[in-house]
Amino acid sequence: MICTLEETAQALQGANDILIITHRRPDGDAVGCAGALCLGLRELGKRAYVLENPDVTRRYAPYIVPYYPEKGFTPRYVVTVDIADHALFTPNAVPYYEQVDLVIDHHPTNPMFGKRNIVRADAGACAEIIFDILVEMGVRITPEIATCIYVGASTDTGCFRYSNATAKTLRVAASCLEAGANGGELNRELFETKSWPRFQMERIILDSMEFHCDGAVAIAKVYRKDMEETGADIDDLDAIAALTRQVEGVEVGITLVEMQAGFIKISVRTKKDVSAAAICQVFGGGGHLRAAGASHKGPMALASAEILQVAMEQCCGTR
Amino acid sequence: MICTLEETAQALQGANDILIITHRRPDGDAVGCAGALCLGLRELGKRAYVLENPDVTRRYAPYIVPYYPEKGFTPRYVVTVDIADHALFTPNAVPYYEQVDLVIDHHPTNPMFGKRNIVRADAGACAEIIFDILVEMGVRITPEIATCIYVGASTDTGCFRYSNATAKTLRVAASCLEAGANGGELNRELFETKSWPRFQMERIILDSMEFHCDGAVAIAKVYRKDMEETGADIDDLDAIAALTRQVEGVEVGITLVEMQAGFIKISVRTKKDVSAAAICQVFGGGGHLRAAGASHKGPMALASAEILQVAMEQCCGTR
Repeated sequence: MICTLEETAQALQGANDILIITHRRPDGDAVGCAGALCLGLRELGKRAYVLENPDVTRRYAPYIVPYYPEKGFTPRYVVTVDIADHALFTPNAVPYYEQVDLVIDHHPTNPMFGKRNIVRADAGACAEIIFDILVEMGVRITPEIATCIYVGASTDTGCFRYSNATAKTLRVAASCLEAGANGGELNRELFETKSWPRFQMERIILDSMEFHCDGAVAIAKVYRKDMEETGADIDDLDAIAALTRQVEGVEVGITLVEMQAGFIKISVRTKKDVSAAAICQVFGGGGHLRAAGASHKGPMALASAEILQVAMEQCCGTR
Repeated sequence: MICTLEETAQALQGANDILIITHRRPDGDAVGCAGALCLGLRELGKRAYVLENPDVTRRYAPYIVPYYPEKGFTPRYVVTVDIADHALFTPNAVPYYEQVDLVIDHHPTNPMFGKRNIVRADAGACAEIIFDILVEMGVRITPEIATCIYVGASTDTGCFRYSNATAKTLRVAASCLEAGANGGELNRELFETKSWPRFQMERIILDSMEFHCDGAVAIAKVYRKDMEETGADIDDLDAIAALTRQVEGVEVGITLVEMQAGFIKISVRTKKDVSAAAICQVFGGGGHLRAAGASHKGPMALASAEILQVAMEQCCGTR
């Protein structure tokens, strides 16, 4: 069942003992949505928790860890936030597959796997939908709720930089600032401070970047030993995929990360004319027009040669 | 005379043959304000031009160069935008010192040097004030005007990242998106695309960065030969000063650029506890708490040793 904002608010208002589920490798939008919804429901006097997410990184832990369930909590209403598909459930969320009462999401491909579903593909961040639902329910937007919503809106839009930051995104963020979110401080933390490992990874990527196709294709390779030497984790690799695309003239930026020997994570970022998703689909992956991913079971040299060939066909062919 | 928004709009509505003046080394806010105001006044059927700015860089030229005066134009009403002080007039603007009819600005230190003055220190970008004035005058916000305002608002707030991006800033930007500004594309151009020289400069800075004081002081050195080899100009050096501060644990980031042999430009960026201005004042420079500059007449090694000593005293002393 597809729900309007009003129907969603009504359904939540009638619920209690609510469990909120986030996706694998949760990003700022996932944790921001979960934290804000949990706090908002509690403002209404309800019992609400966020299911433990084993993948959460230190950057985003503050927004959901405090809301993990107490012992003995039995959920009677299950909500997923920012989860595009069952495949993105964390292992401990799998038992709830068939019990999802409400899906709140902004991914256009969402198969509407809940009993009720509110999916707005035009929302830059899922947090915008959460904000509207909370307002619809008459929840007072506390500074803590505003902070969670702001984190979702800013992280999912590159701090309002990308095309998915709409007028609506900016207005929601404006309301969050008024409600007490400290935008400047949050953004410094989220976007400006590079961990030591991340700084060293950037050095490696900038130094290793190679250009093909008259500078239209850039490729950077990160080896397992680099990850080990720098102590980099997934948090540190966040956003590094975008570095290759930033150079003037680059249409396709490819970042290859050797997660294990013989297992390469492929990240593709594109500009105007080339579909990142189309390139990644060749390797069984997918994603969006400008940002997509896939993986390759082979040594770095083979992964590199194969992805380069596909990218150059797509890129130089369309130029 | 200090003016309200209404009085400002009235004054402009009564004016014609309007000349708009921008400041030395104009930034995105200066050119955005000038372009938007010029176009807005023209929408009202007025003759309006922007005084040639000899310092404008290629990045910002598109927003003011098309509006340079035609031959024989004699201004009868002079407006300055985003100019905090007479000292920031370009040489060709000096003849207008005593003729400024209207000052539109957001710098709190503005001495109100115009016959009329509207100065709003709470505006993140001066472009927000221009937007309000245009709306007050009933100007239709065309996509071109929206683009100029958006450029001002986004560039002066680090793409809405810094603390000076208020709810008002975000709402003005939201209106600009609705009026046809292509935020995603503009931001890619303004914030994401690194010219080849800039990319190479970043490589050099990341590779050359040295850390002192347990990682609390970072220093990067750019030599004249680096500038020549990469073809970098002032545009490319823009924002590079911030790279040193971005590393976790760095309290003081110092960038030294050898502009000529024996002439070193010093840029200092700090985090919480240290005043960048205080460090630069030792070398006859100045600036703000978190960002300041100075110059040093000496070889790189001497400049480096001297600034490091001062920074380490200030930094490690306060820790």
